[in-house]
Amino acid sequence: MDVSKMTVKEFVDEVASKSPAPGGGAVGAVVASLAAALSEMVANLTLGKKKYQEWEGEMERVIETMENIREELCDLARKDIEAFNKFMEVLKLPKETEEQKKIRAEKMQEALKEAIDVPYELARKVRDVIKNAEIVTEFGNKNAVSDALSSAELCRAAFEIAKANVMINLRSMKDEELKKYYLQEIDELEKQVYGSYSRIKEMIEKNGWL
Amino acid sequence: MDVSKMTVKEFVDEVASKSPAPGGGAVGAVVASLAAALSEMVANLTLGKKKYQEWEGEMERVIETMENIREELCDLARKDIEAFNKFMEVLKLPKETEEQKKIRAEKMQEALKEAIDVPYELARKVRDVIKNAEIVTEFGNKNAVSDALSSAELCRAAFEIAKANVMINLRSMKDEELKKYYLQEIDELEKQVYGSYSRIKEMIEKNGWL
Repeated sequence: MDVSKMTVKEFVDEVASKSPAPGGGAVGAVVASLAAALSEMVANLTLGKKKYQEWEGEMERVIETMENIREELCDLARKDIEAFNKFMEVLKLPKETEEQKKIRAEKMQEALKEAIDVPYELARKVRDVIKNAEIVTEFGNKNAVSDALSSAELCRAAFEIAKANVMINLRSMKDEELKKYYLQEIDELEKQVYGSYSRIKEMIEKNGWL
Repeated sequence: MDVSKMTVKEFVDEVASKSPAPGGGAVGAVVASLAAALSEMVANLTLGKKKYQEWEGEMERVIETMENIREELCDLARKDIEAFNKFMEVLKLPKETEEQKKIRAEKMQEALKEAIDVPYELARKVRDVIKNAEIVTEFGNKNAVSDALSSAELCRAAFEIAKANVMINLRSMKDEELKKYYLQEIDELEKQVYGSYSRIKEMIEKNGWL
């Protein structure tokens, strides 16, 4: 299922349907790509404006980074659906003999790791997007500051969605070492995302930009 | 510009582009429709499950409400782009004679009111969606609780986007009475949205659902 080629209505309809995929994970990736697009738009609306001339280089870097991340996020939405479907396939494996049970349990842990890796990757990309939202809030066109803030709000939501999807899958993970690793990583990313988020909100409030 | 008929990639590309519309407002409406779709999915995944039999009626109501709101939200994305374009048209009106200045100022206030009404309507719809997210969190299939939470997170973000768009336009509004009205309304909606949001987070945490 290639999300990027579906119409907005088709995608929303598919999410709403009885089928669990696409679910929160794929939606999180699309929302993160909208966040990236909004930061890119603010950078685009800043370029060529005399008042913001000294930040042209920064804005060009934001645009390039967001273009790449948007592409990767589209791919991540697809991967999320694939990982989920793979997991559902594993659930259907036979579990009658001891040998079958063992194979099924092993495949389950593999599929689980994949189902965690996708939202974990989403959380990392969201951290990158919100850093760029911070740049366009500080140095970008102030007429579009509500769009910079909107980008940050979507990053916050996409991060929470990514985290929820990591957490729900971690519950069934047996490998305690790996579990600890993911928890630490998510914790670290959370600090970074909320660090940017707080700075964006503070900047806007302190300067009365909104 | 009919957002619902664009592909996801086309919409994201349009947002990212140099043109200020579609911007945060239209994105907020699409994000709110994704929130509604996620709550609807949780209700769909609850229907027909013996364990949740007593909540069938609630789930059916959620599905019907979300179907309607999703349609209205698609329409709101389109209206947001139209309101913005109308505002840009007014900015181009001549302002040489006193008469022209007067007409332009009046038209500006009209266009501004429209540009505020759209995100204000978005905020109201988001309040309705998150009330339904609360219902599916409490009574819906617990295997999909991460999707119920994702719905709530998207509502929170869409509300903040709506609020930012109301605020940025209120800055240029001359009618103090109307300004006061919008501020009070947004404040009231904020209490309701965050009330639902906090209860959802508390429920999930208290019951260890995630």
